[in-house]
Amino acid sequence: MSFKPIIPSSVTKMKEFPLSKVYQLLEPGPVVLLTTAHRHRANVMTMSWHMMVEFEPPLVACVVSKFDYSFIALRATRECVIAIPALKLAHQVVQVGNSSGHDVDKFTAFGLTPVPAQCVTPPLIAECFANLECRVNDTRYVNKYNIFILEVLKAWSDPKQSNFKTIHHCGYGTFILDGRTIKLKSKMR
Amino acid sequence: MSFKPIIPSSVTKMKEFPLSKVYQLLEPGPVVLLTTAHRHRANVMTMSWHMMVEFEPPLVACVVSKFDYSFIALRATRECVIAIPALKLAHQVVQVGNSSGHDVDKFTAFGLTPVPAQCVTPPLIAECFANLECRVNDTRYVNKYNIFILEVLKAWSDPKQSNFKTIHHCGYGTFILDGRTIKLKSKMR
Repeated sequence: MSFKPIIPSSVTKMKEFPLSKVYQLLEPGPVVLLTTAHRHRANVMTMSWHMMVEFEPPLVACVVSKFDYSFIALRATRECVIAIPALKLAHQVVQVGNSSGHDVDKFTAFGLTPVPAQCVTPPLIAECFANLECRVNDTRYVNKYNIFILEVLKAWSDPKQSNFKTIHHCGYGTFILDGRTIKLKSKMR
Repeated sequence: MSFKPIIPSSVTKMKEFPLSKVYQLLEPGPVVLLTTAHRHRANVMTMSWHMMVEFEPPLVACVVSKFDYSFIALRATRECVIAIPALKLAHQVVQVGNSSGHDVDKFTAFGLTPVPAQCVTPPLIAECFANLECRVNDTRYVNKYNIFILEVLKAWSDPKQSNFKTIHHCGYGTFILDGRTIKLKSKMR
């Protein structure tokens, strides 16, 4: 797909999500999708190796390997979107993870709708319950560890998706779904 | 507690866990406990900000803040143990997270049993279903981001604990428990 995705009606329904709460989305360890845009094409990959680094402005570290087709785009453009899928997208997530942007337009092939972001060129994904627009802030660990440090510039959530369950990768196509939520007395932020 | 913990009978039941599968423990994003040992005292903290960096030998990135009491021990000794608790330890996990090693011996206070590790001085935790002995491999990101790069030298699992559920932190004492496991057709490692 091109740099200028058509704006579907769903984008108007996306709601800005507070940057101070972004850690609550990533800290529990869900599989996420990562979009990039380079040379007039957008692409999307799956990613489980990510962690929060700072609360606000939210910093996120992630591993994008030199063997991932998205690596060149991410390093060259220093922009990406982290899109967080719920359980209903599990099959598409595996299809995205099992194919390469070198061979296929994954948005079209797997029915994912690109939506223009506000601060970066890579698209949001309409079907995901949250989308984080990110800029690469630091690449000093890329050569040795494939670690990128991202800053979340803008975050979006889909108010139509509540009580979503995320999926957590355990290797070889096995995923643990979110189960029960418990609340324990805590003094911690 | 001292550097020389008494060896309870449980340690003899711990089974070595293959390093090539360590990623399956950490990739889904569980809350973990991190033990350190410094100046004749061991300590333990909670940690949710961690990610896999390499499969084998397993490399793990984690954030230990300068505000954490364990920070000085980790930077000085360059050793730690990542102990992974199951649901049954949820209350102790919160107690560990809500207190400082500066004020209290958390092992005694919260009923956690230190067990000698094989390659490092910080203790394993007998009640956890898995324990990873780690050495700090890289500290170049510590000053700017509090990120430590760890190498897992030895991993242990407790064969008595199977079908465990891990807990995933969502902020302010709210945790999501592991739910159902699904297996999707995947070509990926």
